Amino acid sequence: MIGRMPPDAALSPALRTVTVRRRGERVDEDVIVVEEPLEIRVGGKPLVVTMRTPGNDEELAAGFLHAEGMIAGGAEIASLRPVAGDRTAAGGGGSTRIRVTSFAGDRIDVTLAGGGAPAPPAAEPGREFRATAACGVCGKASMDDLDQDLPPIAPVECRPALFETLPDRLRTEQTLFHATGGIHAAGIFTLDGELLCVREDIGRHNAVDKAIGHFVLRDALPLHDRILVVSGRAGFELVQKALMAAIPAMVSVGAASSVAVDMATAAGMTLYSFAGPGRGNLHV
Amino acid sequence: MIGRMPPDAALSPALRTVTVRRRGERVDEDVIVVEEPLEIRVGGKPLVVTMRTPGNDEELAAGFLHAEGMIAGGAEIASLRPVAGDRTAAGGGGSTRIRVTSFAGDRIDVTLAGGGAPAPPAAEPGREFRATAACGVCGKASMDDLDQDLPPIAPVECRPALFETLPDRLRTEQTLFHATGGIHAAGIFTLDGELLCVREDIGRHNAVDKAIGHFVLRDALPLHDRILVVSGRAGFELVQKALMAAIPAMVSVGAASSVAVDMATAAGMTLYSFAGPGRGNLHV
Repeated sequence: MIGRMPPDAALSPALRTVTVRRRGERVDEDVIVVEEPLEIRVGGKPLVVTMRTPGNDEELAAGFLHAEGMIAGGAEIASLRPVAGDRTAAGGGGSTRIRVTSFAGDRIDVTLAGGGAPAPPAAEPGREFRATAACGVCGKASMDDLDQDLPPIAPVECRPALFETLPDRLRTEQTLFHATGGIHAAGIFTLDGELLCVREDIGRHNAVDKAIGHFVLRDALPLHDRILVVSGRAGFELVQKALMAAIPAMVSVGAASSVAVDMATAAGMTLYSFAGPGRGNLHV
Repeated sequence: MIGRMPPDAALSPALRTVTVRRRGERVDEDVIVVEEPLEIRVGGKPLVVTMRTPGNDEELAAGFLHAEGMIAGGAEIASLRPVAGDRTAAGGGGSTRIRVTSFAGDRIDVTLAGGGAPAPPAAEPGREFRATAACGVCGKASMDDLDQDLPPIAPVECRPALFETLPDRLRTEQTLFHATGGIHAAGIFTLDGELLCVREDIGRHNAVDKAIGHFVLRDALPLHDRILVVSGRAGFELVQKALMAAIPAMVSVGAASSVAVDMATAAGMTLYSFAGPGRGNLHV
């Protein structure tokens, strides 16, 4: 429906061509976004599996660990080692067992500067570590697991005339979106509107983890003087990830949820939703 | 940005008005979607917390348990008891601790016909139950947790002329979307295009769980002769939930991911993405 494989896309692990029948008639090729599991291990122990679009996996892992409060910055990471999955592995299983992937999935092994696996942020003594999730909620079994201690942020003024231009600026760099029409993006801008980093992923939380993880790996936190721009809605888990990096302003193309608004206003974050040329809602 | 509170919306727990400054200037009210945690307990034990839009929580719980393979149908549920959260509870915590909600969240207590809590679908002996997630992936700690045994489905023919009308038909019933511009929907249609059930939720996986859960509670599975229509992209976790209910056809307004395509074609499901008037891709 959307587009042709861009010239260099055959080299991208993020894209794949599939056969479709347009309106059920003409047989054609379509370009779709690849969604594959990535297992993140810390100190040799499985931490979480996230379905992500391959690419920038080191940033994803670093951003995830930071968002979960497991590291304060890149200096706490001793090493990040991507381990490619075995794509020759057979599917196996019975005929009614549908496997999410037909290969042993990709993995990334993280070693922290301290050595072993860290304790989870709010672990109860004697309680087995429960995998927390890239989406910020799923996999958490009780209410208490949802709350996080956040660093203070330095509030910035809302600049509607600037903020309204940022989604279009981001869109020009969303190369995977242009090829497929189906992928989220997150961008980190300076307060003057300079785009520093854009990352795309089928999971919006992953796109944010990758974009922030880019700076985690460079040990360039906190992001006090940066703006996070997201291509979709402002979910609370994205606000939470931004606040963990001390980002003072967030711009979303889509709507904000009630918890996102509550969390942003409580923290003093400037949240500008439904942003685009000539429009935008500042939540106060 | 989008709309006014509809006349009866003040009564809906799914909507809330917030104060915004349009373009940072005119102060106005906006209607946003409520996003609040729901804890699902089975046999007294916490199973999962999902961020959902309040409403049809019983259906959400039933659909979730079915999608996770914990029940085969509504007959296996002895009781579902919603427990409203205490909205007078204080936030508490330090100033930098941002709480996801300022109240003790809603809960739903499920008792299974068998009595106690069921074993997780693929639990290893001696392994603590790990909360699986409404999104189908998050919270799962290893690759093996992702695969599921699925019931066989009875393939149906693609009917482009009909399928292309379904998203518009669904949209007319998306009342919360019309009020807010920011909420997903899932609809269950007959093979002739009659809309049987539409559910909206800030989480697309929740919308699907609610829509399928509607039929679980009526013990009306499998959905052999039904079509699932989703307002957004066809993520693999939605395909997986549909297949668990033996739904043979799925129509999505947005793109399909690579795993969604793989899973649908392997199972013999008719997957029609980017569907709308005069367009649509049948994945073959």
